Amino acid sequence: MAKQTHPLDGVEVLVFDVFGTVADWRSSVIRELEEVGRKFKLDVSDNEWAEFADEWRKGYMINTKKVAAGGEGPKDTDVMHRMLLDNLLASERWSKVGTALDEKTRADLNMVWHRLNGWPEVVSALQTLKKKVIIVALSNGNLRLLVDMAKHAQFPWDTIFSTAMYDSFKPNPIVYESTLKHLSLSSTPQKAAMVAAHLFDVRGAAKAGMKTVYVPRGSEDTKEERESVKSKWEDKERGEVDLVVKDFEELARVFQV
Amino acid sequence: MAKQTHPLDGVEVLVFDVFGTVADWRSSVIRELEEVGRKFKLDVSDNEWAEFADEWRKGYMINTKKVAAGGEGPKDTDVMHRMLLDNLLASERWSKVGTALDEKTRADLNMVWHRLNGWPEVVSALQTLKKKVIIVALSNGNLRLLVDMAKHAQFPWDTIFSTAMYDSFKPNPIVYESTLKHLSLSSTPQKAAMVAAHLFDVRGAAKAGMKTVYVPRGSEDTKEERESVKSKWEDKERGEVDLVVKDFEELARVFQV
Repeated sequence: MAKQTHPLDGVEVLVFDVFGTVADWRSSVIRELEEVGRKFKLDVSDNEWAEFADEWRKGYMINTKKVAAGGEGPKDTDVMHRMLLDNLLASERWSKVGTALDEKTRADLNMVWHRLNGWPEVVSALQTLKKKVIIVALSNGNLRLLVDMAKHAQFPWDTIFSTAMYDSFKPNPIVYESTLKHLSLSSTPQKAAMVAAHLFDVRGAAKAGMKTVYVPRGSEDTKEERESVKSKWEDKERGEVDLVVKDFEELARVFQV
Repeated sequence: MAKQTHPLDGVEVLVFDVFGTVADWRSSVIRELEEVGRKFKLDVSDNEWAEFADEWRKGYMINTKKVAAGGEGPKDTDVMHRMLLDNLLASERWSKVGTALDEKTRADLNMVWHRLNGWPEVVSALQTLKKKVIIVALSNGNLRLLVDMAKHAQFPWDTIFSTAMYDSFKPNPIVYESTLKHLSLSSTPQKAAMVAAHLFDVRGAAKAGMKTVYVPRGSEDTKEERESVKSKWEDKERGEVDLVVKDFEELARVFQV
């Protein structure tokens, strides 16, 4: 009987998406919004703050994809987050918040994206993985944001790639190809695996020849997408990615053998 | 009496040169050359191997500076190191080595630059510094080389910048300016300090508005240069850099207060 090979055999670099995949942006942002609400005694419920956070994030997803496809928009994520925040606060729905928040509060709140926390299991799992393979971040966030977040949340990256280095955003192909080049893996892209909670991201990586790991996270993709993604391993015909793991602990176990 | 301010007050990012400043390339390379000599029973003395290492390194310094100034040459450091190695081995002086070394040995030896060790005090000092400020590498080495070296020698970088990201080498101004941009310090470059054992490197950083720390290392610059560099602090008229430290332990003490 032929020896069963694991789909990640030969992988020497794990490339991690950050927002949503490693960082639990949603609870981190909601918590700071609630703090702002208390400080300014705003009549906004926790549910409403969650919706505010979701709208802010949705604007980011739409705009980064637009710029990735060649459209107009800010290429720096601090600038983009601030533009989206100001637009939200100028909208009728959030006018009661907008009138209360001064410049200093907005500038500080905008930096919440630099101090997101990780999902509960990630720091320990990344430390384990770091002993076995190279672990890097590849995110649409600007480099300083990613460094600040890593220090805040103790993500032990070997190094960090920001798409700002390539003057674009994921899933533009240049992002994956350039990252492979800097990892000296252009001719052997299957030695790198993209780990993400977003189908668009693993699809972009697969087109560049990378292996792919999908991690369904409650705040990312749609419920339907999260539940339908199959690995080629478990379903040869309909499988799209190389591996699906429920969290980073499961991913770490793959490399523990 | 006015409070004496330290020249590095306000610095939030330390940007380290790697070869020679953090890594003791010379003893690492000589050791592997000696191993090759023993393996192939070559009649080459330890002194000769040291000269071989110095010639290899000299070729790298000359060629990176040439490319930094807009000249022709390999932009990938693995390719450059290999070209220089092959040229050395084809020269009359080293023909007794060249005839002995096959392709596999050359390819492996070329990777010695990925597995350099640090100067004795650097790992501990960098760990201390990492708790106080952001510590990053900025090197002419390619990114994979720098990641491999960091894992091998346990350099705890927050992130790594390779000049390959900017398609150039130090001291081309684009290298320092782009690094400041990614650190979100373009308008406040004095919040970053370049730490290097090379005058050309601290001079390039100073032109971009960065603060500068010079670390004289026995294998770098000339003896005359190493002994003549003064800080503006100790010599207002002839001082060139912001600080001179004998090693990273002394640098770490600056941030311990």
